[in-house]
Amino acid sequence: MLTAALLVAALGSAQAQEKVDLDVTSQIRQEAFQRSQVMATLNHLTDVIGPRLTNSPSMANANQWTRSKFSEWGLANVHDEAVADIGRGWAFTDASMEMLSPRAMPLHALPKAWTPGTNGAVEGEAIFAKIESKADLEKWKGKLKGKIVFTDALRPYKPNEKSDFSRHDHDSLEELLSYPLPQERNSDPEMMARYRARMELAPLVNQFLIDEGVAATVSISSWNDGIVRVMGGGSRKAGESVGVPALVMMAEHYNTVMRALERKEAVKLRLNVDARFIDEANQPGYNTIAEIPGTGPQKNEVVMLGAHLDSWHTGSGANDNGAGVAVMMEAMRILKAVGARPNRTIRVALWTGEEQGLIGSQDYVGKHFGKFEEPKDPEQKALPAFFRQSKGKLIRTADHGKISAYFNLDNGSGKIRGIYAQENLAVAPIFEEWLKPWNDVGATIVTQRNTGSTDHVSFDAVGIPGFQFVQDQLDYFSHVHHTHLDVQDHAVAADLKQASAIVASFVYNTAMRPAKLPRKPFVETK
Amino acid sequence: MLTAALLVAALGSAQAQEKVDLDVTSQIRQEAFQRSQVMATLNHLTDVIGPRLTNSPSMANANQWTRSKFSEWGLANVHDEAVADIGRGWAFTDASMEMLSPRAMPLHALPKAWTPGTNGAVEGEAIFAKIESKADLEKWKGKLKGKIVFTDALRPYKPNEKSDFSRHDHDSLEELLSYPLPQERNSDPEMMARYRARMELAPLVNQFLIDEGVAATVSISSWNDGIVRVMGGGSRKAGESVGVPALVMMAEHYNTVMRALERKEAVKLRLNVDARFIDEANQPGYNTIAEIPGTGPQKNEVVMLGAHLDSWHTGSGANDNGAGVAVMMEAMRILKAVGARPNRTIRVALWTGEEQGLIGSQDYVGKHFGKFEEPKDPEQKALPAFFRQSKGKLIRTADHGKISAYFNLDNGSGKIRGIYAQENLAVAPIFEEWLKPWNDVGATIVTQRNTGSTDHVSFDAVGIPGFQFVQDQLDYFSHVHHTHLDVQDHAVAADLKQASAIVASFVYNTAMRPAKLPRKPFVETK
Repeated sequence: MLTAALLVAALGSAQAQEKVDLDVTSQIRQEAFQRSQVMATLNHLTDVIGPRLTNSPSMANANQWTRSKFSEWGLANVHDEAVADIGRGWAFTDASMEMLSPRAMPLHALPKAWTPGTNGAVEGEAIFAKIESKADLEKWKGKLKGKIVFTDALRPYKPNEKSDFSRHDHDSLEELLSYPLPQERNSDPEMMARYRARMELAPLVNQFLIDEGVAATVSISSWNDGIVRVMGGGSRKAGESVGVPALVMMAEHYNTVMRALERKEAVKLRLNVDARFIDEANQPGYNTIAEIPGTGPQKNEVVMLGAHLDSWHTGSGANDNGAGVAVMMEAMRILKAVGARPNRTIRVALWTGEEQGLIGSQDYVGKHFGKFEEPKDPEQKALPAFFRQSKGKLIRTADHGKISAYFNLDNGSGKIRGIYAQENLAVAPIFEEWLKPWNDVGATIVTQRNTGSTDHVSFDAVGIPGFQFVQDQLDYFSHVHHTHLDVQDHAVAADLKQASAIVASFVYNTAMRPAKLPRKPFVETK
Repeated sequence: MLTAALLVAALGSAQAQEKVDLDVTSQIRQEAFQRSQVMATLNHLTDVIGPRLTNSPSMANANQWTRSKFSEWGLANVHDEAVADIGRGWAFTDASMEMLSPRAMPLHALPKAWTPGTNGAVEGEAIFAKIESKADLEKWKGKLKGKIVFTDALRPYKPNEKSDFSRHDHDSLEELLSYPLPQERNSDPEMMARYRARMELAPLVNQFLIDEGVAATVSISSWNDGIVRVMGGGSRKAGESVGVPALVMMAEHYNTVMRALERKEAVKLRLNVDARFIDEANQPGYNTIAEIPGTGPQKNEVVMLGAHLDSWHTGSGANDNGAGVAVMMEAMRILKAVGARPNRTIRVALWTGEEQGLIGSQDYVGKHFGKFEEPKDPEQKALPAFFRQSKGKLIRTADHGKISAYFNLDNGSGKIRGIYAQENLAVAPIFEEWLKPWNDVGATIVTQRNTGSTDHVSFDAVGIPGFQFVQDQLDYFSHVHHTHLDVQDHAVAADLKQASAIVASFVYNTAMRPAKLPRKPFVETK
């Protein structure tokens, strides 16, 4: 009680200034809750278009279809922006695997993206071989011809004693309000050496597998209970070795094969992976952009919202991140439907290449708002940005000062419970006010915690207020994240309607507020 | 506290009589906990032999292997007992399914037992058709040629908000001690009519599907989250129509197809099921039997223990009921290992046909101990026993009076928490005493509740004390029961060791006790 009282006192002045237009908020609420199209949007994105791997044909379909919807809804400046040289397109249509002996049974395995197909059914013996160093290459040389290589040790089953499905409760939201101090920045040279060694080894292993005539590799799904969790392998970059067909197998089947090998039984397998690279050379990927132009004195300023349109390939990218895309699209539709005439321009971006490291949003932010100078030291340059000793100098564009904020949604299909303020203390009382009309649908907290791993980070990194909402987890981290179960069934309609309304309202408030949102201190390291 | 005090007072006299040989109990405990072979047994049964569908080749392997283990351990009278005319053998080696259009993706589906294979890959269009009555046959006549028929409506996803994995706690055990009064016996003529109609319709539908040239049928898995839950279809009986290839598909893929059909899209599928019937004519199945002969004055009396050796076909029958079989086998091994010289004969039975309705144990009990006269009314005779107005007269064999009890384990791989006394009040204080040396490993309760659905029912039905132990549920009803996940990984070694020890000890106590276990009142209805 004391905390709450102090908070109210401290925020008193900010609250007085933050006027929320409850008439527009009410219209947004009605449109979002009574006339929602968010599930129809999600259905088209996931069921009709399907999974949207970066640079795949279905990702191109998704760019095209989302543009057409934006145009249909009357948005302006609908276009794609190219992101150069993301890599090659890839698609798969089928994969099946079978144990032929010591006993016959179907095995459930799916291919890693950007790995080759088998070109018809192939048969081979399973062998367990961990290849984690150059010494391992020597060790296995000449021993793997025609083999199907199992690359991971057997992983004993560990039951999950918590529920697969969770929503925040009072206690977990309260916990989120506490701010854990950041750990010392890790510049451990050993860690960097390990990273470099891993980067160096990957293409060598790919080429080794080809040179040795390995039929395929199989790794164990990182989750149990039949869930096949798959990301990329091989290489999406033209000119790099793509290795051999590489699959991820459900853990129970993987362990069944491994136990047979432990018993010294000959395990013969058959597999068929129908997968292909679309392009010979690297191709650009595309972010899809659309706007509701500002009509007020600050119409040259912008508020952005976005989510990533790309997904992994074995489900249909419904929760990661069809849900976010459908909500952001729906927020734009709602704003048009209620006849919003924002002061600032509202711009939505549907990113490509998020799953490959925020490629689309980073490229966009670099071109439109600012980016760090590349380090001159070649050793530092070879490292990914987060390993570098210094970020370098930020080179800002003219528009760096003209963007108020970026809002992102990418933590599954769970409803919004609040927002991460990312240590922007000044923005907290504003967001607290903005959440009030949504307290009754469960959105209540503003936490100073940072959250990462998605596209708001691209904005936050260059000093632009970038936010991700706090969402209910549902079964995101038990069933669907990067798995073959990430399909529409696991998305919750009521949650997406709630999120659409809140996003529309936050974006509208940002566009209408007399001043841009406050920025947190930005310290450039040299 | 009051309850416990009263209980102790009430049980005082029984406790005084029930002597447990703590020296032998201690030896059992050491052998079970320190030198267990239960996981090796389970591994061979499930990984090496594989699933053990009734009358399949691998069930025959399992009969053979379990006999050889019993002989190796020095058991006597090791043999199989035939159960006539169970039906035909069936096996499948592979199944794969793929959506070709509107977009290409692999679908996860597995065949129902006793349904035909496809004889190579077949392609067809999906169509939704519920066939639940003779009128439906007329309705769909001429419309299903070459089609892949989806037989269930789309089922909206419902998240499970409880943990997938559970163990009993103090409260749930306490709850199990309360006895809910039985409901009125249901002899609803409408229910019987529905049953008869369903039984009549099934072969007609099978023949209809063939006559109409249907390519295959697909039904939705009864569980979500990618779990394929499959039992039987077609018919195991020679001379009956086996219909067309019939599969069960994981719910998320099934719903994906159904949504495409709802959008009026043409859904083209390809499937390949490699399945075959082993026999032309009905064959006997086999129960495997073995003994430790009694050496005392009551050596002509018997104590039985058992579990069903047969399983469904898509996992490897590890929890249903490899676990029970491995525990019962291990209990026999332990008793031999500790040099037990029981007064009464101890006989283990590994049943066939449990999944088809306790066929193996019912047949055995009928031949060895007693069975009910068949009703003379042909209408009553056509009904399964549980629907009949009267059970009829029990015809007892000479051995009916010579069996003390039967102990069963068939609720997954969870450890023993107590035992169902099946309304045998007189046996409760005895079991309470017997459990005492096992209280510290979690086995504490004797409940008067009845539990059903497994082979102790065959004994209980004819007035022989038949018991199933109370077990921790683990993930039996969330992941493994009749699913493709029912493999060794989901069995818990420590739990199986505990259960082996307790079963060995109960069986030994039953064999050594001066009198046979008390029987509950047996009322014959005429």
